[in-house]
Amino acid sequence: MPANIPNLEQKRVVIIGAGFAGLSIARDLVKQNMQIVLVDKNNYHQFQPLFYQVATAGLEPSSIAFPLRKIFQNKKNIHIRIANVENISTTEQRVYTSLGPIRYDYLIIATGCDTNFFGNQQIKENSIPMKSISEALQLRNAILENFEKTLTIATEEERAAYMNIIIVGAGPTGVELAGTLAEMKKHILPKDYAELDFTKMNIQLVSSGDRVLETMSSVASAKALEFLEKLGVNVLLDARVVSYDGHNAILDDGRILPSKTVIWAAGIKGNSLQGIDTQQILPNGRIKVDNYNKILGYENVFAVGDIACMSSTKYPSGHPQVAQVALQQGDVLAKNMVALLENKPMKEFQYKDLGSMATVGKNLAVVDLPQWKFQGFFAWLVWMFIHLIAILGAKNKILVFINWLWNYITYDQSLRLIIRSTSNKNTADE
Amino acid sequence: MPANIPNLEQKRVVIIGAGFAGLSIARDLVKQNMQIVLVDKNNYHQFQPLFYQVATAGLEPSSIAFPLRKIFQNKKNIHIRIANVENISTTEQRVYTSLGPIRYDYLIIATGCDTNFFGNQQIKENSIPMKSISEALQLRNAILENFEKTLTIATEEERAAYMNIIIVGAGPTGVELAGTLAEMKKHILPKDYAELDFTKMNIQLVSSGDRVLETMSSVASAKALEFLEKLGVNVLLDARVVSYDGHNAILDDGRILPSKTVIWAAGIKGNSLQGIDTQQILPNGRIKVDNYNKILGYENVFAVGDIACMSSTKYPSGHPQVAQVALQQGDVLAKNMVALLENKPMKEFQYKDLGSMATVGKNLAVVDLPQWKFQGFFAWLVWMFIHLIAILGAKNKILVFINWLWNYITYDQSLRLIIRSTSNKNTADE
Repeated sequence: MPANIPNLEQKRVVIIGAGFAGLSIARDLVKQNMQIVLVDKNNYHQFQPLFYQVATAGLEPSSIAFPLRKIFQNKKNIHIRIANVENISTTEQRVYTSLGPIRYDYLIIATGCDTNFFGNQQIKENSIPMKSISEALQLRNAILENFEKTLTIATEEERAAYMNIIIVGAGPTGVELAGTLAEMKKHILPKDYAELDFTKMNIQLVSSGDRVLETMSSVASAKALEFLEKLGVNVLLDARVVSYDGHNAILDDGRILPSKTVIWAAGIKGNSLQGIDTQQILPNGRIKVDNYNKILGYENVFAVGDIACMSSTKYPSGHPQVAQVALQQGDVLAKNMVALLENKPMKEFQYKDLGSMATVGKNLAVVDLPQWKFQGFFAWLVWMFIHLIAILGAKNKILVFINWLWNYITYDQSLRLIIRSTSNKNTADE
Repeated sequence: MPANIPNLEQKRVVIIGAGFAGLSIARDLVKQNMQIVLVDKNNYHQFQPLFYQVATAGLEPSSIAFPLRKIFQNKKNIHIRIANVENISTTEQRVYTSLGPIRYDYLIIATGCDTNFFGNQQIKENSIPMKSISEALQLRNAILENFEKTLTIATEEERAAYMNIIIVGAGPTGVELAGTLAEMKKHILPKDYAELDFTKMNIQLVSSGDRVLETMSSVASAKALEFLEKLGVNVLLDARVVSYDGHNAILDDGRILPSKTVIWAAGIKGNSLQGIDTQQILPNGRIKVDNYNKILGYENVFAVGDIACMSSTKYPSGHPQVAQVALQQGDVLAKNMVALLENKPMKEFQYKDLGSMATVGKNLAVVDLPQWKFQGFFAWLVWMFIHLIAILGAKNKILVFINWLWNYITYDQSLRLIIRSTSNKNTADE
C-alpha cells in the first residue's frame, strides 16, 4: 500500500520503532538525501525513565510523550506510519504491517523490549507490567480503584490484601515505584482515605538478587536499600515470586503474600520480529549484531538499542539495555548509513559509559559516575536535572518542572484521576 | 454495605453527582453538623466548559479534572463513594449502588444530563458524543486516528470522507469545537500530515435552528457566525441530520454529507433515576421541583442543577441548563438544608442571570452581559479570565494558563497523542 509515499530515486530506509534508538536515527537521517519511513504502533515517542511517575500520579502521560509528527513537521522525506508490524520478508525486502506492506532498501529494527514473564502465564494474566505509558496509566487506575474498593470491604484480613502492593524486581523501575508509593502512603493516601487504617498498608519489593539496583555499584545498592527501608518499604532479597493468582503471591520458599496488586518489573525480553533468521535471535529475544549493528547474515538489515545484542570484550553478552546505549548506537548507526550510501567505510560502535542513576524518593537518589559515586540530596538534584534535559520539547520540560516543584512543596501529586479513554458504553464501569 | 461509614447521630445527606451543583452543596454542607455521602461514578469533578479543548488536544484531562478526595482531604463527616447508582427506594430511604445500598435521611439528586440522540439508535451507535472527559478523549483519538488512516487510502473520494468532520448542534460546544478544528486545519494539521491535501478537508456545523448559539443574543449569534465563516467552517442552518451510518450523514432535505467523524452535540437529556415517581419526570428527563428544589410529592428528596426543572414566571419550562444555574441552586439548597435541620424556614430560589459567553477561536469570542454585549478580542480575554478563575485548584489554573499561552504563541496544541489507558492486550490496536 502506502499509496501516498512518493516513489523517488532516493534509497528508502525503514525504521521500526520510535524509541530512543529509532527516533535518534530518524532525526539524523531526515537531514540526508534519503527517504525515511518510521513505523511505530503509537503516534508518540515515550520517555521510559519516567513511566513510574505516571503510574504514581505524579506526571501526566502527555508530559513524557511527544507526538512523532510534531518532531518531523514540514519534513518531506519522512513518512510516519502508525501501524503494527506483522512480519518481515528479507527476500522481498518488505515489512508487512497492519497498514499493508512497506518496501525497504535498508531496514533498521529498533523495537526495544517488553516485559518478560519467563513463561509464567498465571503471573502474566494477574500482575501488572509497566513497559509503556498505557500500562503505567493502567497501573495508576488499578492502584486507585483498589483503594476505592477497600472502603467497602468488611473483614480486616481482606482489606489488608487490597492495601498491600508487591513490586517484583528491584531494578530502577522497581525501586523508583516502591519509593514513590511509600511516600504516597505516608503523605497523601491517609488524607484521601481518612476512613482507612494505613498502618495496615504494606509495600513489598521482591528481588531475586542479593541487592537492589544490581547493575549499579555496591555502594549505590546499599544506600538505595537504606533509603527504601527508611521510607518503610519492606525489601525481600534472594526471593522469587513463583505464582500469583490475583489474591496471593507465593515465594519460592513457600511464603504467602496476600495482595491485590502485583507489579511485575522483574525482566525484559526483546520484541523480535517474524522473518528474521531465528538463528540470530537469542532466547531473551535480543538479535545478534556485529560491531556495526548489522544483523549477522544480512547485508541491509540492522538492529539497534535494547533489541540488539552486540558482543564485545567488555560486554560479552551484550551492552546494558539502557537509554544511553540506544542513543549512542543510534548516533553511530545513522553516520554509518550515510557512509554506506556514499560507499565509505563504516565505523565500529564503542560504548562510552556515562554512568547511571536512580531515585528512591524526595531528596533521595543514587548516582554512579565513572569517577565519582554519590547519594542523597545532591544526587537527587542531578537526577532531576539530567531527566529534565533529556525530555523532548520545551513545553514538556516546563510542565514536568512545575509538577515536580509543586509536588515538592505540597507533598501532593494531585493527579489521582481514574480516567478511561474508552466510552462509558464499552467499559465495564463498576 | 458501606460497612465503614460510622453510624453517627448526625443526619445523613446523600448527594448523587459531583458536578457543579452536587459539589457546591457538598462543599457547603461539609462544614455543618451532618454526615455527607457523595456518590459519583468518577473519582473527580470535571470542568465541562473546557471539554472541547481536551477533544482538540489543547488541554490534558487532568487540567480540567479535580480529584474529589483531594477537595475533601481530612474531612471526617464526608464519605465519597465511586459507584454507579442503580436505583432508589424512597420508601426505604435507600440508594442502591454498585457498592451496595446507602441509607439517607435527605437525598439530593444532582446527576446532570447526558447526550440526547432523540431515540435514533443508528446515530447513537455511529456518532461521537461529548458529555464527559472520557468522551472528549475518545473524540481526540478518533480524529487523530482518522488522519492516520487517511494516509493509506488510495481514492480521493474516500480520503475526503476521512477528512470531513461534521458537528451536529450549534450550541457553545458545537461552535467551540468547530472553531478550534478549523484553526487546527489551518495551522497544525498540514504541518503534521504534509502528505495530505488539506484543501480537501471540510468542517461542517449543522444546526436545526436558524442561527448559531440560539440561547445567546442575536448580535452574538451573528458575530459568531461571521467568526466561524472567517475560519472556514461551513455552517448549515435550518438543517437536521436524520441518519448516519458511519459513512454518510443524510440531512432532512436529502443532502448526503460523506464523513467518518460525526460529533453529536445536538441535545441533552436528564440522567433521571429509577425509583423517582415517573409522574415528576419530563420527557426530556428533567425532574419537576418546587421553588426549593424539592421534588414534587416528596419531603426529603431534592433535585438540583441541569436535572432539575423549576418552573417560574420568567422560565416557565425550567431554567437554562448551564453551570451558573447549577452553582446558584446548589448554594441556595445548601443553605436550605441547614434551615431544614434547624427547623427554620427555607428560602425560595431566584436565578440571577450573570450573562453567557462562547469562544470561536483565537481572539474571537462573544459575550452577552445583562447590560452589555461585546465580541472579538476583548471578549476573548474576558472568556479566558472567567474560565481560569472557575477552574478548581491553583495548579490546574497554572497549567491551563501555560498551555493557553503556549498555544497562543506557537499556534500548536502539541497534545496530539493517541493514548489508551487500557492494556495493549485488551485493546484492538490497529
